[in-house]
Amino acid sequence: MSTPPDPMTSVPPAVESALREFFASRRPGTDAVGGTFTDAVAALEAFVLRGGKRVRPAFAWTGWLGAGGDPAGPDAAAVLRACSALELVQACALVHDDIIDSSRTRRGFPTVHVEFADRHRAGRWSGEPGRFGESIAILLGDLALAWADDMVRESGVDAAAQTRLGPVWSAMRTEVLGGQYLDVSTEVTADESVAAALRVNRYKTAAYTIERPLHLGAALAGADDDLIAAYREFGTDIGIVFQLRDDLLGVFGDPEVTGKPSGDDLREGKRTVLFAEALLRADESDRGTADVLRRSIGTDLSDEQVHRLRTIITDLGAVDAVERRIDELTSSGLRALESSSATAEAKASLRALAMAVARRDA
Amino acid sequence: MSTPPDPMTSVPPAVESALREFFASRRPGTDAVGGTFTDAVAALEAFVLRGGKRVRPAFAWTGWLGAGGDPAGPDAAAVLRACSALELVQACALVHDDIIDSSRTRRGFPTVHVEFADRHRAGRWSGEPGRFGESIAILLGDLALAWADDMVRESGVDAAAQTRLGPVWSAMRTEVLGGQYLDVSTEVTADESVAAALRVNRYKTAAYTIERPLHLGAALAGADDDLIAAYREFGTDIGIVFQLRDDLLGVFGDPEVTGKPSGDDLREGKRTVLFAEALLRADESDRGTADVLRRSIGTDLSDEQVHRLRTIITDLGAVDAVERRIDELTSSGLRALESSSATAEAKASLRALAMAVARRDA
Repeated sequence: MSTPPDPMTSVPPAVESALREFFASRRPGTDAVGGTFTDAVAALEAFVLRGGKRVRPAFAWTGWLGAGGDPAGPDAAAVLRACSALELVQACALVHDDIIDSSRTRRGFPTVHVEFADRHRAGRWSGEPGRFGESIAILLGDLALAWADDMVRESGVDAAAQTRLGPVWSAMRTEVLGGQYLDVSTEVTADESVAAALRVNRYKTAAYTIERPLHLGAALAGADDDLIAAYREFGTDIGIVFQLRDDLLGVFGDPEVTGKPSGDDLREGKRTVLFAEALLRADESDRGTADVLRRSIGTDLSDEQVHRLRTIITDLGAVDAVERRIDELTSSGLRALESSSATAEAKASLRALAMAVARRDA
Repeated sequence: MSTPPDPMTSVPPAVESALREFFASRRPGTDAVGGTFTDAVAALEAFVLRGGKRVRPAFAWTGWLGAGGDPAGPDAAAVLRACSALELVQACALVHDDIIDSSRTRRGFPTVHVEFADRHRAGRWSGEPGRFGESIAILLGDLALAWADDMVRESGVDAAAQTRLGPVWSAMRTEVLGGQYLDVSTEVTADESVAAALRVNRYKTAAYTIERPLHLGAALAGADDDLIAAYREFGTDIGIVFQLRDDLLGVFGDPEVTGKPSGDDLREGKRTVLFAEALLRADESDRGTADVLRRSIGTDLSDEQVHRLRTIITDLGAVDAVERRIDELTSSGLRALESSSATAEAKASLRALAMAVARRDA
């Protein structure tokens, strides 16, 4: 067999085709319900299909390959379908998160609740457009979550693989919802601890984006406990690194490269590990600086204020602390990977990915 | 074996104990996420446990018994767990519906979004209490939906039963979400047709409350196609009857008996079959009356106005039309049941239930 192509580039088109087939298979059921339900589902399908890098299915697929899954074997198509179902969980998470965060656009398009509010306005329907948009987005997010389970159940993986997959699938959904819950509640309670920020990071991002997808792939392949443990360690560490780098970019990123306004996280009041580290240090060394940080976060800062906060955060040593944490976690994640029984190709893919995640600038 | 007790009274405590055990089994996972997630899940558990008549599990269980399931046999506990999972789907539907309808109380307690808004206010947290409450309620509803699937997957029913159950479970979730979607969109577009009202009725109530639960029980028991078809016909007909009776009670019910203000459906602007029948007749006979109906629905009516609308609706013949539909559907539902191969006990339970549904006054 020739070297398989990089999963991060080869997986997305295959995932999209699996998702397209799945939506086609739902069509008789949605047509039977009737009314304009089919149109609403078409909006959900468009949302799912225009989305993203398919990171979670790519990790799941890599986890399966690395545990000895054969991409030319008879199970490959079913496994790919099960991995693709992660995109439907993600669709629910995004559609509902966009309501929670009152986000107006995603990937250059109106968010689902905004799209349906616009339809309401255009049709001059009765009631409040915003309320209608959110109601429909709640229901379409629910549908995506229910269909994620359907897609796994109907994927075609055999009963033994379903049994292995079940607990991982279950843990993953509980963790991401728990992580979202913590994110919302940490923000309103203004929990300033590094521990709280790391907890959100771990469950909302690391477990859901890397650890559990790799674990899912391993479970589908029937991997042994050692490989699963190594994947999970790698996935947790690199997943946290992913978010820590994101936190740094959210304050220090170049808007030309990230595509987001500079210092966005400070204006939005995100309770990141970076900010928690800064506050911790300020509280120990300089109450005046701590007051400035507390008063500034989550307000409509000028570029000059953002610039000053950056200097404060750097001078406090918070950036160094986060960079050190990134280095340590990258090393420990890579160590777990290298000493595992994953295939050489999977190790190479995951290693490249870890380095890209740790060092990216967008 | 002695005659089994009436499922409508014997099932609820068994369902509650299965739900309690299920929540206990989630505890290590939610504790691992940490923070206050466990508290939030406790609020969801309290909501699920204080709820209702367990109608859907009771129908599913009756469907299983009627197809030959043995309540003293080795599968009974697993089947009961799978049937109980319907209550978690229902928890999601109620929690999310209460956000959509801006409902403040349910079963004498604050709704979930109101409860968390209250916690926000009590803690003097930052941001808007209402927004926070809705965000948490969205996430807890999602969790209930995800856990419904977990509860089925972990119920202990064998692989063959899981395979039979899959398509029914899938259809049921799509139908109830489709029905909720239709309900929201029929109201804002003020769709006045009898067909639109019947469609909401069929998918939001009939399929979800009676037809699919019976079907699910039959699938668990491995029933043949004829019995499944009979159950579905009975369930659809009696499910629609249930909602039609509800529509009549929503306008003509005695507040002392129903516990709801008289004429509530008129004030809320519900697009019921009863109202659609009235409007259809008014449009054919008397434009002035049609105008009165259109201007009145969904407004803050006085008791006297409600009284006048009742007279109008009755005089137009809409009540007779709905009562006729109730009689026809009750007869056809019972015919399907009687000629089926369901056990005599199940037939007796379902017959009694159909009569109670058709003739109830609360």
